Amino acid sequence: MRPVAVIGIGKTAFGAFPDRDLRSLAVEAGQKCMEDADVSPSKIEAFYLGNFAGPSFVGQNHLAPYIAGAMGITGVPATRFEAACASSGSAFFHAVSAVGAGLYDLVLVGGVEKMTSQTTPKVTEILAGAGDMLGEGRAGATFPALFAMIARRHMYQYGTTREMLAAVAVKNHANGAKNPQAHMRKVITMEQALAGKPIADPLTVYDCSLISDGAAAVLIAPLDRAAEFTKKAVKVLGIAQTSDHVALDEKDDITTFRAVKAAGEKAYKMAGVSPQDIQFAEVHDCFTIAEIIATEDLGFVEKGRGGPYALEGCTALRGPRPINTSGGLKSKGHPVGATGVAQICDVAMQLRGEAGERQLDRHSLGLAQNLGGSGATAVVTILGVQA
Amino acid sequence: MRPVAVIGIGKTAFGAFPDRDLRSLAVEAGQKCMEDADVSPSKIEAFYLGNFAGPSFVGQNHLAPYIAGAMGITGVPATRFEAACASSGSAFFHAVSAVGAGLYDLVLVGGVEKMTSQTTPKVTEILAGAGDMLGEGRAGATFPALFAMIARRHMYQYGTTREMLAAVAVKNHANGAKNPQAHMRKVITMEQALAGKPIADPLTVYDCSLISDGAAAVLIAPLDRAAEFTKKAVKVLGIAQTSDHVALDEKDDITTFRAVKAAGEKAYKMAGVSPQDIQFAEVHDCFTIAEIIATEDLGFVEKGRGGPYALEGCTALRGPRPINTSGGLKSKGHPVGATGVAQICDVAMQLRGEAGERQLDRHSLGLAQNLGGSGATAVVTILGVQA
Repeated sequence: MRPVAVIGIGKTAFGAFPDRDLRSLAVEAGQKCMEDADVSPSKIEAFYLGNFAGPSFVGQNHLAPYIAGAMGITGVPATRFEAACASSGSAFFHAVSAVGAGLYDLVLVGGVEKMTSQTTPKVTEILAGAGDMLGEGRAGATFPALFAMIARRHMYQYGTTREMLAAVAVKNHANGAKNPQAHMRKVITMEQALAGKPIADPLTVYDCSLISDGAAAVLIAPLDRAAEFTKKAVKVLGIAQTSDHVALDEKDDITTFRAVKAAGEKAYKMAGVSPQDIQFAEVHDCFTIAEIIATEDLGFVEKGRGGPYALEGCTALRGPRPINTSGGLKSKGHPVGATGVAQICDVAMQLRGEAGERQLDRHSLGLAQNLGGSGATAVVTILGVQA
Repeated sequence: MRPVAVIGIGKTAFGAFPDRDLRSLAVEAGQKCMEDADVSPSKIEAFYLGNFAGPSFVGQNHLAPYIAGAMGITGVPATRFEAACASSGSAFFHAVSAVGAGLYDLVLVGGVEKMTSQTTPKVTEILAGAGDMLGEGRAGATFPALFAMIARRHMYQYGTTREMLAAVAVKNHANGAKNPQAHMRKVITMEQALAGKPIADPLTVYDCSLISDGAAAVLIAPLDRAAEFTKKAVKVLGIAQTSDHVALDEKDDITTFRAVKAAGEKAYKMAGVSPQDIQFAEVHDCFTIAEIIATEDLGFVEKGRGGPYALEGCTALRGPRPINTSGGLKSKGHPVGATGVAQICDVAMQLRGEAGERQLDRHSLGLAQNLGGSGATAVVTILGVQA
C-alpha cells in the first residue's frame, strides 16, 4: 500500500440541535473539510459515509448520494457504511484502503448521526439494534445493561471500583469543558460522578455517553500528493478493521474486546510502532468501562490495570498518556455514525497543534479506536506527523 | 487492477418465508456459496454485506459481523453497505475493487433482505426512505408514485404505451415461471397485465416488483488463483458504481438515469466491449418502466426505443438479447438488499451453463445492472467466460 494522508478535516459542533436536519449537518462538516484543504467538490473521486441509523432516527435511507448530491458531488461512487458505533471508522478504513491501493486519489469520508428527533424516546431501542435482537434484545438487554455486565465482570475479575469508572467521567468532562465543539461543557466532581442517578448498576448516568447530533469529515489523499493541498498533512501510519461475534454470550471473555486487540496489533505492526510509543489517543468511551478496557486492549497498560491507570491520573490531559483530550463520547458527545471520523479529526487537531486550551506538548503520534456494539466491530488507526 | 473472478455462487429461494429470520437466510446463501467453491470460512479475508433496511424491517442492525459470526467468520473486516436497492451491487463493487487492487484474495460478498414481517404494512414507507423524505416523502410520493411519474413522462416524450410496459411484465413472469428459485412462478397474459389493479397510474400491480425475503452470495478471488477453487470461474470484465441526486426534481431529465449511463460507459470501457457485444443481461426492473429505461441507458437500443424493443420480443428468452432470464425483480422477487448479488449469481448461472430450462445458447458475455432508489446509485457489472 502507498502511504495515505489526511489533508483536510471538518466538524460541526456536537449537541442537541432540534432545528437541524441530518443532511445539513453532514453537508456542513463536508464543506468545512473541503475548505480546509481548498478542494472543490468536483475533484472528489469517491464519497464514503458512515451512518448508523439515519433510517430509524429520521426515516431517511440512501444517505450517501443524498448528502453527496447536496455538496455538489455526483457521478462518483457514494456509499454508506454501517457498522453500529464504528460506522464512520469503518468508512474511513475502507477509504484509506482504497486510496492506499491506488483506486482513488481524493476521497471524502463523512460521518453523521441525527439522534434527537421525534424518535428520541426510542433511542435506546434503536441503539439496541447493534446488539443481538434475537437474544439480547428479546431479553430486554439494551446497551447500558450489556456494558453494566461487562463492568461488573471487570470489577469481579480485576478489582476495578466505582471510583475508577467515575475517574474516567470526571477526566472526560474536564477535557470536554475546554472543547468549544463539545456537547456537554460541564466540569463534574468525583462526588457528583459517584452520586449519579443509576442507569444499569454499576453504571450511573455519568458512566454513559451522550445522545447527540453532529457530523464530521476528513479528506484523504496519497501522501505524495498531500503537499499540493496542505502544509498540515497527517499521515495514516497504521489502520485495521476487524470483527467478532455480536452477542456477549458468544464471547469467551467479556472483559476484553478481541476485535480491538486484533485491530490494534495489526495497526501497530503496519505503523512499526509499539503501544508505548503512542503519545495520546481518542478511544471509544461509550461507557466509562469501555475506556478502561480500551487502554488495556490497546496495550497501554496490563490487562486489569486500566482502572487504576485512570484513577491515578495517567490518562489526564497533563498526564503521561492523555486519553480523550476532546472530552470523548462522554462529554464531547456521541452522534453514533459521526464518532469514528470525529476521532480522526480530534487526533489530527492535536497533531496539527490546533487543539487550543487542550493542546498537548507531545503531539507527533496519536491513535484513534472506534468500537461497534459490544465489540463486534473495531477500527484502530495510528496517525502521525514529523516530531 | 488485476483481473478478478467470481469463484462461487449461492442463493436462497426468494419468497415470503414467515418462519425464517434474516440471519438464517444470509447464512444459507453464504454457506452454499462457500460450498460451491469448496472454501472454508477460515479462509475468508473479508466479508462485504449489502442490506437496505434490516434495522427497519426486523430491528437488527450491525448485520455484517452478526451474519459473519454465524458463519464462523471473525477477526476480519465485516462491513455492511447500504445504497438502497443497489446495496449489494455496491458491496460487490467495493469488494471487486479491493481484490482487484490487491488488498485481499478471498472475499465473500452477501446480500440479504427480510421484508415480510410484522413491519410489512409499513413496507412502502420504509422503501420511501430511499427517496428524499424531506421532499418526496413529505409529499406522499412513495416509489410507485415516483416511477409512475417517470413512466408518464416516458410515454409523453417517446410514445411508450401501456402495452409496452405490460410486455415487460408478461416476459418476466414467463421467465420466472421456469426458475425454481423465483418468488412468483406464475405465467400471465397480456390481457391480465393490462387489466391489473391500478397502483399509481399508469402502473398496475403487474408493473411492480415483489416484496420478498431472500439472500444471495458470491465468492471472489484474483483470476490467477481461480483455478485452485473452481473449473467454472466467471471473470469480472468491467464494473463501475456511480451516483446522482436522490430527488427526482433535482434531475434534468427523469426519463433517463444519468448514473446508469455513466456506470455503463465506465464498465464497457474497462471490459473493452460495446453494448452490442452483450449477449444477455439482468437489469433492475423494480418497475416495468425501469427495465425499458435500462435497455436504453445501457445502450442496447436508442433512447426512447426501449418500449417497442420489449413489445417486439427482442428481450424475450429466445429473442436476440434476452433480458432478465431469471424472471427479474418482477417475478424472481426483490428482497432489496439481496438483489444486486442475486443478479451476479443469475448472470453467472447462465455463463456457467447452469440455468436449466432458461439456459441460453449464447452465454459467454453478460451484464448486470443494479439501481438504487430512483437512480441515485447505479452499479453495472460485465461478466464473461471464454466463448
